[in-house]
Amino acid sequence: MTDNSRPGEIVLTEDPGLLPPDAGLVYIGSIETPWDDRHACPRSGGRSNEICTIHVDGRFAEGLKSVESCSHLIILYWMHEARRDLVVQAPAFDSTTHGCFALRTPVRPNPVSLSVVKLISVDGATLTVRGLDCLNGTPLIDIKPYFPANDSVPDATVGWHGRRTHPERRSIDL
Amino acid sequence: MTDNSRPGEIVLTEDPGLLPPDAGLVYIGSIETPWDDRHACPRSGGRSNEICTIHVDGRFAEGLKSVESCSHLIILYWMHEARRDLVVQAPAFDSTTHGCFALRTPVRPNPVSLSVVKLISVDGATLTVRGLDCLNGTPLIDIKPYFPANDSVPDATVGWHGRRTHPERRSIDL
Repeated sequence: MTDNSRPGEIVLTEDPGLLPPDAGLVYIGSIETPWDDRHACPRSGGRSNEICTIHVDGRFAEGLKSVESCSHLIILYWMHEARRDLVVQAPAFDSTTHGCFALRTPVRPNPVSLSVVKLISVDGATLTVRGLDCLNGTPLIDIKPYFPANDSVPDATVGWHGRRTHPERRSIDL
Repeated sequence: MTDNSRPGEIVLTEDPGLLPPDAGLVYIGSIETPWDDRHACPRSGGRSNEICTIHVDGRFAEGLKSVESCSHLIILYWMHEARRDLVVQAPAFDSTTHGCFALRTPVRPNPVSLSVVKLISVDGATLTVRGLDCLNGTPLIDIKPYFPANDSVPDATVGWHGRRTHPERRSIDL
């Protein structure tokens, strides 16, 4: 444990962000949101009603053909400000620690976040969507169509989440 | 267009796989599936009933704490054999071309694929799941809990997909 972790948290000996990468991502655009500070971001995209704008880089714009026919999209983005070395975390909303792979925190070995968004409109290489919760300027890495036959599981459960002790508390300072 | 693309397809001038990366991924494990050849892979994970095994690297094993309480997970993996420079594609199952961001093809600027899986069991750093469709040995990059409140949209639609002309054809040779 290092000084900047909470009791019960586990920090990796080797920070994945400092290791030689196994594969490389290119940013394909950026995300414009109303939130310039992590403390202002909503708790999770699905609960946010704010309109956000996805700017796809011109070189990839042709990749958007037919996207306008999708009602919902899966957006993958890179949480460029997140640390990558905290495998067990103590979220503010629970008295128990959890592994990063049981959490949707940006703090994980590969800080790729994903949100399911409602597509409002497409204008050239700019998408207007609802359902994001990330910082203004977050780098975009992928856009995928949402197929309910594969992607929708209405009755899925997250056991620990139903038992969390402080659902009203936020973990933005992790 | 280069020799190894189909009519109507658009190839990027610069292959994203050859550009200096903007961010680096570390592989956190690997996925064991019954499919050693792309032609043997199912069309999509949601339609496959096969049991697959996710091996998380020992250094990240503590990150699995509480994962056992999840009924479903989102698995992110790296399609390490996919080309990255084809932005408009001509899938075998349609007479119209589509952008990579309207398709779930592994062929995209950042070949990160995602599947929603049902978690069968956890044994140490090994997860047994149902719902994957990738090649045996595919590198793992993330595991996330599936929250239906944010991730499930049963009535989402993909317009072009409903109008595809050859739903029975496969695009594995792309």
